[in-house]
Amino acid sequence: MKGRFISFEGSEGSGKSTQAAMVFEYLQKRNIPVLLLREPGGVKISEAIRKLLLDVKNTDMTKESETLLYMASRAQMVEEILKPALMQGKIVLCDRYLDSTIAYQGFGNGVDVAAIKKIGAFATQGVAPDLTLLFDIQTEKGLARTNAVKDRIELRSVQYHRRVRKGYLALAKQEPHRFRVIKVNKGKDEIFKTVRHYVDEFLKK
Amino acid sequence: MKGRFISFEGSEGSGKSTQAAMVFEYLQKRNIPVLLLREPGGVKISEAIRKLLLDVKNTDMTKESETLLYMASRAQMVEEILKPALMQGKIVLCDRYLDSTIAYQGFGNGVDVAAIKKIGAFATQGVAPDLTLLFDIQTEKGLARTNAVKDRIELRSVQYHRRVRKGYLALAKQEPHRFRVIKVNKGKDEIFKTVRHYVDEFLKK
Repeated sequence: MKGRFISFEGSEGSGKSTQAAMVFEYLQKRNIPVLLLREPGGVKISEAIRKLLLDVKNTDMTKESETLLYMASRAQMVEEILKPALMQGKIVLCDRYLDSTIAYQGFGNGVDVAAIKKIGAFATQGVAPDLTLLFDIQTEKGLARTNAVKDRIELRSVQYHRRVRKGYLALAKQEPHRFRVIKVNKGKDEIFKTVRHYVDEFLKK
Repeated sequence: MKGRFISFEGSEGSGKSTQAAMVFEYLQKRNIPVLLLREPGGVKISEAIRKLLLDVKNTDMTKESETLLYMASRAQMVEEILKPALMQGKIVLCDRYLDSTIAYQGFGNGVDVAAIKKIGAFATQGVAPDLTLLFDIQTEKGLARTNAVKDRIELRSVQYHRRVRKGYLALAKQEPHRFRVIKVNKGKDEIFKTVRHYVDEFLKK
């Protein structure tokens, strides 16, 4: 595949969606063919699954079912839009991807990480990010930055979100060639300077 | 687990749902604690997933996403209702289960059967039927018996449904101790005599 794939990861309130949008604009201005996706969602069927996943009324959703719904949404997005875009040579920016399931459902909720990786390989058909920008923020600070009306995942305990953060940092340690960890301790424009540096460095390769 | 688990399988128009309902009534009359479930569905979240799966508007659903949605629905039903019922010692009758995904998505749609089994083990937590009644009907005859308003799966080609039927028969051959194949070539009351015989034999064990 000719394109390149950058994923944006991080726990709640880390500002990754804002940074993904800024990178999208930055590349567009440079006339680089770029596509911005968000997970769960991005295509019609995946958005319908997203609604199920984030609906606060679905309090009784089991952790296995939750994991499989994220995977179903991902499988649809990969086949319908991500793979075709990469084959067309686009830079694809994805706001969350498989690492989110490992961090949230695996480290956060105790779902077997080896099983997640196996199901992930099936769902993604092996399509993996070339670069992952991980936005790391202190858990309480991040949660304080989320919307007043919280979704089903955001509503989980601080302990849960701490495990998610730790999970992300463990993943970054396991794959230092793929991950760039960005500390969220400055304004978004200051952070974008670091992000742009990593993106420029990656695109030069 | 003290309970016993009987699944009802078969291609479109095989009459398995009618037979499942008849077995349910038969066991209830004998004061045996029994539960009847249907897949996909059975519990609130799974019914929402069922809607997505059968909606004829979702023509662009990928085979991987479809497989994972069936698994997500199943995972929810297993944890929320099937496992608790088996632990309470009930006889659980399930109209479709993992074999349906192997037959329809695997044999019918070309999804890797080994992958389906692995994801199935995750989704079901290893909960498998003790007895599977497979209702086998000639493909065209079965399709002619389905509702005039067809769902997304029923609308697939005759060739597809032929592969499903063959898949089922292959599964039955692989596990003769678990499967009982019932030819659908008589009226429902005649067929129920055979079904009742297998159920009685199974419950005596």
